[in-house]
Amino acid sequence: MERKKAIVLLSGGLDSAVAMWLAKSQGYDVYAISFSYGQRHSIELEKAKILAKEAGAVAHRIVDINMGQWGGSSLTDMSMEVEEGDVNKKEIPQTYVPARNLVFLGVAASMGEALEAYDLFIGVSEVDYSGYVDCRQSFIDAMQNAINMGTVAAVENGHKFTIHAPFIDKTKVDEIKLGMELGVDFKNTWSCYKGEGTPCGTCDSCKLRQEAFRKAGYEDPALKA
Amino acid sequence: MERKKAIVLLSGGLDSAVAMWLAKSQGYDVYAISFSYGQRHSIELEKAKILAKEAGAVAHRIVDINMGQWGGSSLTDMSMEVEEGDVNKKEIPQTYVPARNLVFLGVAASMGEALEAYDLFIGVSEVDYSGYVDCRQSFIDAMQNAINMGTVAAVENGHKFTIHAPFIDKTKVDEIKLGMELGVDFKNTWSCYKGEGTPCGTCDSCKLRQEAFRKAGYEDPALKA
Repeated sequence: MERKKAIVLLSGGLDSAVAMWLAKSQGYDVYAISFSYGQRHSIELEKAKILAKEAGAVAHRIVDINMGQWGGSSLTDMSMEVEEGDVNKKEIPQTYVPARNLVFLGVAASMGEALEAYDLFIGVSEVDYSGYVDCRQSFIDAMQNAINMGTVAAVENGHKFTIHAPFIDKTKVDEIKLGMELGVDFKNTWSCYKGEGTPCGTCDSCKLRQEAFRKAGYEDPALKA
Repeated sequence: MERKKAIVLLSGGLDSAVAMWLAKSQGYDVYAISFSYGQRHSIELEKAKILAKEAGAVAHRIVDINMGQWGGSSLTDMSMEVEEGDVNKKEIPQTYVPARNLVFLGVAASMGEALEAYDLFIGVSEVDYSGYVDCRQSFIDAMQNAINMGTVAAVENGHKFTIHAPFIDKTKVDEIKLGMELGVDFKNTWSCYKGEGTPCGTCDSCKLRQEAFRKAGYEDPALKA
């Protein structure tokens, strides 16, 4: 029997790395896809390359798409400063990139249709929502429907796409525990919004990560690297 | 009162040009967006630049995204020949690009969110469907829903996006007649799947265009250029 193929959205961060190892553990041949979208630094993409290799991905594509050219986010607009983290605040963070997962999942579907890979994995969590509306199950459902209405594979040939968001109701603590069981190479996952050699420890993303590793009962291997 | 802003998907072809002039005639400030997605030739994009200028667009962005790298279509895969046209055939044409409008509309929504432009125009027609499932109203509806579930503007701030597909139930003949009334610069629209200096006249797209101009009662200005 032919093996199942999965497209995994791989950012180089913690969540998508665990998603990739999970897809692999479920018997999928993994095709990883990353995006160079005008983000502030490229260290994530370097980490993504290492992770894809470590996980035994069949292929890893890095797609260039300059969403930074219309600004709207401190991750892509070099004229905005990254704000210091306050994990309790309720506003939309400046690090929001307009419609990012909409674009990424659309491209993943395009690649999936070409490769006959109808299972798409994305490591978003509604629990760690923090204002990212494109990390909610209701968005994932709507996007899956759009993909299944807009591709020949789904409409004409009966190959319905499934967007797997296995961590949608999971905390980062859950993800870390699962990742440790699956042998995820956490050392090479990158979460910091800044792009220096070691994580800054002060941005929103660093704070969430450190807290999660502590609660999961592990030391963060990236800090020892 | 501030003028309304529209994002218009502009391919450089006939349909999107009429859509742009229509948006303008409806009082929108037009922000045109085109894609360099690995298509076989760049003449369309050159035409798109001229058209945006002629229509008085406020801005025109050309977004690079290499969807050609995973093949799956004769428009993006240089190893496939463009087939000769047979407008009566029912199969999915080889010129289908996987999930193209899904990706393009996602990117348009991203740009729209950054620019506070919540009206997106796309020149697709279900009448001239020819197997392109992402040209159907049901897909447009599904995509509009996904955009409104996946953007902060829509979910948190009440700015719902509308995808305008004004030709969804129109024929090319209707579009040409409307375009002539609106003063569309048809001379600079490009429909041919091949990219030489003058339209080939034998591909699917050329045949449809010629037939439509004839039925509309006009000579195609592009043929006299």
